[in-house]
Amino acid sequence: MTALRHADGYATSAHYDGSGRIRHDAGGRSLTVDATFSLRAEVRLVDRVFDPATPDLAEVYAPAGRCVALVDATVDRLHGDALRAYFAEHGIPLAVEVFRALEEDKTLDTVCRMAAFLGSDGCDVARGEPVLVVGGGVLTDTAGLACALLNRRTPYVMIGTSIVSAIDAGPSPRTCVNGTLMKNALGAYHPPVLTLVDRALFRTLAPEHLRHGVAEIVKMAAVDDEVLFGLLQRHGRALLATRFATTGDDPELAAVADEVLFRSLYAYMRHEGTNMFETRQDRPHAYGHTWSTKFEPVAGLLHGHAVAVEMAFTATLATLVGWLDEDGRDALLALCRDLGLAVHHPVIEDLALMRAAQETVRRKRGGSALWVVAPRDGLGRCDYLAEVEDSLLAEAVGRHRARCSGFPGGGGGSDMYLRDARWA
Amino acid sequence: MTALRHADGYATSAHYDGSGRIRHDAGGRSLTVDATFSLRAEVRLVDRVFDPATPDLAEVYAPAGRCVALVDATVDRLHGDALRAYFAEHGIPLAVEVFRALEEDKTLDTVCRMAAFLGSDGCDVARGEPVLVVGGGVLTDTAGLACALLNRRTPYVMIGTSIVSAIDAGPSPRTCVNGTLMKNALGAYHPPVLTLVDRALFRTLAPEHLRHGVAEIVKMAAVDDEVLFGLLQRHGRALLATRFATTGDDPELAAVADEVLFRSLYAYMRHEGTNMFETRQDRPHAYGHTWSTKFEPVAGLLHGHAVAVEMAFTATLATLVGWLDEDGRDALLALCRDLGLAVHHPVIEDLALMRAAQETVRRKRGGSALWVVAPRDGLGRCDYLAEVEDSLLAEAVGRHRARCSGFPGGGGGSDMYLRDARWA
Ligand SMILES: NC(=O)c1ccc[n+]([C@@H]2O[C@H](COP(=O)([O-])OP(=O)(O)OC[C@H]3O[C@@H](n4cnc5c(N)ncnc54)[C@H](O)[C@@H]3O)[C@@H](O)[C@H]2O)c1
Ligand SMILES: NC(=O)c1ccc[n+]([C@@H]2O[C@H](COP(=O)([O-])OP(=O)(O)OC[C@H]3O[C@@H](n4cnc5c(N)ncnc54)[C@H](O)[C@@H]3O)[C@@H](O)[C@H]2O)c1
Repeated sequence: MTALRHADGYATSAHYDGSGRIRHDAGGRSLTVDATFSLRAEVRLVDRVFDPATPDLAEVYAPAGRCVALVDATVDRLHGDALRAYFAEHGIPLAVEVFRALEEDKTLDTVCRMAAFLGSDGCDVARGEPVLVVGGGVLTDTAGLACALLNRRTPYVMIGTSIVSAIDAGPSPRTCVNGTLMKNALGAYHPPVLTLVDRALFRTLAPEHLRHGVAEIVKMAAVDDEVLFGLLQRHGRALLATRFATTGDDPELAAVADEVLFRSLYAYMRHEGTNMFETRQDRPHAYGHTWSTKFEPVAGLLHGHAVAVEMAFTATLATLVGWLDEDGRDALLALCRDLGLAVHHPVIEDLALMRAAQETVRRKRGGSALWVVAPRDGLGRCDYLAEVEDSLLAEAVGRHRARCSGFPGGGGGSDMYLRDARWA
Repeated sequence: MTALRHADGYATSAHYDGSGRIRHDAGGRSLTVDATFSLRAEVRLVDRVFDPATPDLAEVYAPAGRCVALVDATVDRLHGDALRAYFAEHGIPLAVEVFRALEEDKTLDTVCRMAAFLGSDGCDVARGEPVLVVGGGVLTDTAGLACALLNRRTPYVMIGTSIVSAIDAGPSPRTCVNGTLMKNALGAYHPPVLTLVDRALFRTLAPEHLRHGVAEIVKMAAVDDEVLFGLLQRHGRALLATRFATTGDDPELAAVADEVLFRSLYAYMRHEGTNMFETRQDRPHAYGHTWSTKFEPVAGLLHGHAVAVEMAFTATLATLVGWLDEDGRDALLALCRDLGLAVHHPVIEDLALMRAAQETVRRKRGGSALWVVAPRDGLGRCDYLAEVEDSLLAEAVGRHRARCSGFPGGGGGSDMYLRDARWA
């Protein structure tokens, strides 16, 4: 975690900087300010982050004199002892607060309880003190927002414990809770100052959860990194079977697992990190996230499967506009099916629903256009379709259904439906 | 409201921009992102903002096609008809939601209700659509936070209707609600893209409310603008008596009123606007805001009087460290007393309380030092005392009490105590 350099002693925090410039009109009736904020965020692969021999956490929290942590309840059950032992071993005082983190807990009420803990007497986290956040995507989204709001910005260190939170929700600047009408409607851009990614934690993930998390890696490969795509083609199944080389003992596969994670993180941050405040809409990582926002809840799909269905469908759409050849599309379908991810679901044949999704997303993406992400000129590269006309949409849906009709289950995936109880 | 220039069509909003740069280590195990966010904010004095002949609001909302507004309940009672008539006259659809805005309403629950309205079906404010916010400081703090959270950032136009919200809380980037232990503990830096300041609205302010708002103008004068200080010495009483030249008909006083407001706004934004994300602690506007954070609630003082007491006390402290001569201190005391503001209160003689305030504020200001703002080398300039030792604190308190002991009421002000009912 490298600090920014500040010119004098007045810096509020080592992690953030800012500047501005003011002008006023001659008449003394109006003024304009241009202001800038900057931050530095680091992402690091780590081997067994809670092994006392691993220095990363101690390097942050020994100088801070203590560690205040927000931890996912499931993760606390499985890895809480290791976390506590680590800090005990290093003689660093630790204050842990554990939160249940189901999707239904993604509310401002949860954020309030987190902030009340962080700001409580005796705890009283200071403005520049990095909180530790450990958990899946729900926990990291809510805890990130609590840190964003506390003192109007408190830094945090992230340990994402699911695939999704390790490579996507965790390093993401997008903290959030769900709104009454829209998922993730309320939030703030507030990335962790340091993200530690440790695949040893994936050993305890449920297989269907591991699988649907891998959909996000397929996404990054398909639109941004053909080498990563090739690695998934060759090793994806083995990575799933060994929970990212945490079971069995295959050093080569372990090296592949690290490379897959680092490439995913790099692809993610290369675009999302350099567009940290989402001031641009050309985001490769929105691949699979246009129509699925509406059809995922309607069909009750796990997020990763919904994304996979849309990725596959968009690949077919890309063949229709001449952006991708059929071999490219079929390679994507084959990879998804190899990993047990869905490539088709009848819900996308509901054109009214699909058009409604377009309306919502167009509005959300600033109103100017739809900006559908699709592979272009082969997998590993992408471009943005400004609009998808009704006739094109209908044709693509028909073609995609036809392409998938021969697959067993019509292109469905393994364990593709949401069963909330499984996550409890 | 001038937009930022964007290089291509992918901008999320005309008001915000960002960029970033990524590096990774040779070993493929860590990466670092430096990211930047920038925005433009304008502040404008306006004559009768709701007079249909005044173009400012129409210039923003006619192109937007409608206006969605969050309005303070008291202000709606007094000025709501004028607001509605303005938009009706211009043929611009208007959706107004009215919120009670007492200090006790400064909660995340209020923010949630605001966000639910903005994000509700049929309303559904888009990411780049500027919301209109009209009210006192409580309304502007909460509505600003609702806009900050909605879609992770929605622009807004501000009409501050009290002195405090017109020149301080309104243009301020610091949106917030109160925490369980600390006032303004939770929030976000999210300034309005456009602040319109119209002193015609001050005509309906309660006199004691007008007076305690003027304390913030005295503050800016004392630490940043000696011309403003002189204007207050010559015209402060007349401005109070005429509610900023909105009663009576004195064009010269009206010009003075505008100059006083513009100078206050300029002083405010010159420092706060160029430090928009509070990444620095050398903030002249923290003058009067160190010890008062604790003694204001203990003594039940109106905020402006608490600030005035601390300003006066700090001026005495400044004489002890050789930063200010007694004439300077006495000029500040005389101005405050002339305007009916308190300059002393026995609560500051509680040294344990004063030291407790120092601890809290040191933590809040990043932990490195206390950074007490005090005038230096005359009024209109300031510097920062890194620390205030116990002995110096005790001596300053003694001196200040002695200096004020001859004043009627020991240096108390008019209507200095909080009576919540008066604001209802
Ligand atoms: N902010 C972003 O950019 C972003 C990106 C992607 C997803 N998300 C959000 O992330 C959430 C999904 O995250 P998720 O997939 O991690 O789901 P999740 O947080 O619901 O976690 C799923 C379950 O796995 C458990 N778990 C986490 N780590 C574990 C481990 N190591 N071993 C065993 N169990 C473990 C959790 O306790 C939970 O019960 C959604 O709310 C989504 O909106 C946000
Ligand atoms: N964000 C910041 O930087 C910042 C700066 C200063 C103060 N504040 C906050 O602002 C709040 C105080 O603001 P305030 O002094 O405006 O108090 P307020 O918002 O409580 O307003 C006082 C009363 O005056 C009413 N009112 C507002 N405009 C009126 C008008 N034109 N005519 C008649 N009545 C009117 C309000 O409805 C309210 O009842 C505090 O919560 C404080 O923490 C924030």
